[in-house]
Amino acid sequence: MALLVQKYGGTSVGSAERIQAVARRVVAAADRGQKVCVVVSAMSHSTDELVDLAAQISSVPHPREMDMLLTSGERISMALLSMAIMELGREAISMTGSQAGIVTDTSHGRARIVEVRARRVLEALDEGKIVIVAGFQGVSTEYNITTLGRGGSDMTAVALAAELDADVCEIFTDVDGVFTADPRIVPEARQLHAVSYEEMLELSASGARVLQLRCVEYARNHGVLVHVRSSFNAEEGTWVREEDERMERAIISGIAHDTSEAKVTIVGVPDKPHVAARVFTPLAREGINVDMIVQNISTDGRTDISFTLPKDDLVRAKPLLDEVATGVGAREIQTDDSIGKVSLVGAGMKSHPGVAADMFEALGDAGINIEVISTSSIRISCIVRATDVEQAVKVVHKKFELPEEAVAREQHPATATDQIKALRPPQSDGEAAS
Amino acid sequence: MALLVQKYGGTSVGSAERIQAVARRVVAAADRGQKVCVVVSAMSHSTDELVDLAAQISSVPHPREMDMLLTSGERISMALLSMAIMELGREAISMTGSQAGIVTDTSHGRARIVEVRARRVLEALDEGKIVIVAGFQGVSTEYNITTLGRGGSDMTAVALAAELDADVCEIFTDVDGVFTADPRIVPEARQLHAVSYEEMLELSASGARVLQLRCVEYARNHGVLVHVRSSFNAEEGTWVREEDERMERAIISGIAHDTSEAKVTIVGVPDKPHVAARVFTPLAREGINVDMIVQNISTDGRTDISFTLPKDDLVRAKPLLDEVATGVGAREIQTDDSIGKVSLVGAGMKSHPGVAADMFEALGDAGINIEVISTSSIRISCIVRATDVEQAVKVVHKKFELPEEAVAREQHPATATDQIKALRPPQSDGEAAS
Repeated sequence: MALLVQKYGGTSVGSAERIQAVARRVVAAADRGQKVCVVVSAMSHSTDELVDLAAQISSVPHPREMDMLLTSGERISMALLSMAIMELGREAISMTGSQAGIVTDTSHGRARIVEVRARRVLEALDEGKIVIVAGFQGVSTEYNITTLGRGGSDMTAVALAAELDADVCEIFTDVDGVFTADPRIVPEARQLHAVSYEEMLELSASGARVLQLRCVEYARNHGVLVHVRSSFNAEEGTWVREEDERMERAIISGIAHDTSEAKVTIVGVPDKPHVAARVFTPLAREGINVDMIVQNISTDGRTDISFTLPKDDLVRAKPLLDEVATGVGAREIQTDDSIGKVSLVGAGMKSHPGVAADMFEALGDAGINIEVISTSSIRISCIVRATDVEQAVKVVHKKFELPEEAVAREQHPATATDQIKALRPPQSDGEAAS
Repeated sequence: MALLVQKYGGTSVGSAERIQAVARRVVAAADRGQKVCVVVSAMSHSTDELVDLAAQISSVPHPREMDMLLTSGERISMALLSMAIMELGREAISMTGSQAGIVTDTSHGRARIVEVRARRVLEALDEGKIVIVAGFQGVSTEYNITTLGRGGSDMTAVALAAELDADVCEIFTDVDGVFTADPRIVPEARQLHAVSYEEMLELSASGARVLQLRCVEYARNHGVLVHVRSSFNAEEGTWVREEDERMERAIISGIAHDTSEAKVTIVGVPDKPHVAARVFTPLAREGINVDMIVQNISTDGRTDISFTLPKDDLVRAKPLLDEVATGVGAREIQTDDSIGKVSLVGAGMKSHPGVAADMFEALGDAGINIEVISTSSIRISCIVRATDVEQAVKVVHKKFELPEEAVAREQHPATATDQIKALRPPQSDGEAAS
């Protein structure tokens, strides 16, 4: 019997009516003869309300207590969804992260899953129950309640899908899937039918919000087939899966942008061994994620090191950096939080050398100055002024004519659909009507 | 070192400001050199909101899921209180019912505590932490989350106090203590300084809402000294404790009333052995609590059996009773939900035989008809019309001049205070200012 993991985000379960709609969708999937395990987030707004309450009490709430507080949110949505499913005549059972065996490390607020002991989930599925699991939360190896941080519910879903050996992990969200660019900026942006794990990794790392980086990484490492789709309609979304020869036709998959980072430049760093390590080790120790790092050749024995980090971490990073600058004998620290990053991602660019040049040309033609460049084999990222980001996304999207590329790809459907069709019983064709 | 268990109800933790006030109170107690374990209810209104949500989804929510839903409430209040205490510079840690070792049976919605495994609580107290425990909830022997039903947080507090061998269990509530009658009905009603477990049992069983019956039972069985007091001021409340020779001076402790019950009369029951058992066994099996049972002498081989039960259970009880009536050959079943019960409670009435007569006289003088009478050695209860209840409480209160009795008692303070004073370090005298 096929096994399906579905994940519904906070907006999808934002009210009693929406929870009932989700219940109908879940039951429809079960009625097609599949075992269904559902992961839910807290009802939208509920987390914000809890955060507000905590802020009234403490400016720096204790991380353990914050996790205890926030995890009440999923308890509410999962119990309500379970009731709604039973109301439709199906057996259901809700489980906390702890009951579902989501074991994490002890980093409150951003715990990592270290093990999934899904025995109770499996037993309940085998008894014919629909299992509702609280996303975003787990229990630490020291028996405290933890949260997985941003995108945590997606993590729960993918980790359970891996452990349960699910046929597919459906991530239901408030967008239709992965797009060639943010449709709010580029109205003609097209939904992608499928992207490879590698492409999705680069897109997520570059600011695409639909899936978090760590979740894509986990899916790739465990070979979990992910289907990102809308919870508000029955259309197919975007498949995230192993690269496939037929996917190669698209040079570019999409453009991501990110204005959540700040740029730091350490000016006049003596160009000596170990300097880079002395700069970045203290930041790493504080858990600050440094993104783009650029170091240019040195002139008269000194160089400048630039990098980006989340704006939110700038306050924490500043004293560390001042100390580092003094330690290594740098001239000064410059910080700039009015920057944005525009990234072009596509597995096809590996075999198409002119892509970077085309991107730079498009930006130059629009009069947009590129401040920092960094690339991977399937991504080119440029730092520009924050005020130029939207224009940059538009002109790069136009340059690569992404809508037509996307059309070309849909004429050659990727194999994910075929795989799924093979896994589903015949009546699955009726899904669009469910 | 003295160990204190404090319990704060939903109103006491109803907002961020109130939680901060509770935190100050808890820290003041800890500053007096005591170990403090705090039990909290969910913030007032939050439980109602959750019940409303569930009602939108299911008319008969699944009990297990309902428990999962409702227990999110205490998670919120306990995490916030823990944060508020830490904000005052004290170490604190919150624990769910499960983490605090509250093990219950599997009756969702009204679970009974079967064991308290307070190892984690004790360890944290020994580390100098203030421990905040979620009231009202536990984990069943089958590892599901359960709730303890009405007055559940008081139960948690008393059970923990027993297991931790606490010196006192303080129940903070929105009233000042136990009164000789409901002050909303009898403005001159006086707060009692101390009542015995037996008296409190009778008062609770007779409708006094300040403490639930099962909680008083548990306290009596485990010898837990309980102090019921207001969370909105620093005044001493009412001590609930072992009877003491100096308590005997008061003939009457108080008057309780209850309009939550309905009266059932089975008319024309053949007066044969086993009939009573055949009537009440099916109700007991359904978990319906029958209260006053009265059976009069029979005329021509038939008798009438009257009893009271919660109005809320009447719908469930009716079909069972119809079946019973047919089975035993009774003539008919009469139900009446417009009744009320007025009870006079006092350990002293054991040695003062005229009390019942005085009560009946007071009611008679006021023209109030008594429909059913039932007594224990320290309680007299009368069923009257629901519309007569308030008047009945007033005239009985006046008859026994309870205010003066209460004054008389306060001139001879019961030993509870002395016991506590002995347990507290000298600075405990400053409590009134905390």
